Amino acid sequence: MPKAKTLDDLFLETLKDIYYAEKQILKALPKMARGAESPELAAAFQKHRDETEIHVERLQQIFEILDKPARGKTCDAILGIIEEGKEVLEEFNGSVALDAGLTAAAQAVEHYEIARYGTLKAWATQLGMREAAGLLDQTLKEEIKTDEALSKLGIGKANPKAA
Amino acid sequence: MPKAKTLDDLFLETLKDIYYAEKQILKALPKMARGAESPELAAAFQKHRDETEIHVERLQQIFEILDKPARGKTCDAILGIIEEGKEVLEEFNGSVALDAGLTAAAQAVEHYEIARYGTLKAWATQLGMREAAGLLDQTLKEEIKTDEALSKLGIGKANPKAA
Repeated sequence: MPKAKTLDDLFLETLKDIYYAEKQILKALPKMARGAESPELAAAFQKHRDETEIHVERLQQIFEILDKPARGKTCDAILGIIEEGKEVLEEFNGSVALDAGLTAAAQAVEHYEIARYGTLKAWATQLGMREAAGLLDQTLKEEIKTDEALSKLGIGKANPKAA
Repeated sequence: MPKAKTLDDLFLETLKDIYYAEKQILKALPKMARGAESPELAAAFQKHRDETEIHVERLQQIFEILDKPARGKTCDAILGIIEEGKEVLEEFNGSVALDAGLTAAAQAVEHYEIARYGTLKAWATQLGMREAAGLLDQTLKEEIKTDEALSKLGIGKANPKAA
């Protein structure tokens, strides 16, 4: 019989999931930045792309702490979320509502990350992995900040003409 | 040339997306409740299932306000998120970490909904749809509450043995 799985296994599986997700996000953000009509929204996507590189590095540090190779695992959730962003880019191309749609797509991405980092941070704490919990907390806070920044852009400047 | 799309179109598309998502969630929650080890977590899933029925009804009311048929549109994001929950159920079956994994899966679902309802509420407000904005706000608040309740269960009672 295989060894029963523990929270350590679940932590590692979920780490691989978000590692894969961050790499997909890294590829998607420049496309979203090029698609955005408003320079502010394009800049927000570009800024978040740079932050995402740091998030990937932090995850690599956690793999090192665990003494495991940094390896992703296909994450159906992020693939679905990014696919919906691509649909918005195609279907609302040239529309006054494009930026509102892109902002919404990006916020769906942020919320996926907030859920995952919140969970990982809680588990790291439970598992007594203080350094990992600290790294996860830093990224979690940045994801929440990005989501809030997008909310302000989405409601305010990014799409005043959309209505 | 087809008529250029506006925020009204984006609102309707996103409404169809979350309508489809809620119906998928309605099907997934009883399976998660049956899978949960802890009676508290099973009860939380069951409670949220009942709330989800109300969320579906509120969306139907908004379709009525718009004078459009209540119709979903395949939402790749929720399909991916639910698929990951199913994987946890299979891979962590019989593990002490099962409830922690199910809680995390449910929180990913909640965060998708929080993103979507937050966006829809903001757009309804921009579009001057006060009644719809009020309905969306009620559901948004309930999703946030569910996420917080799951956080408490996830860290506390649901998986004390998992570490």
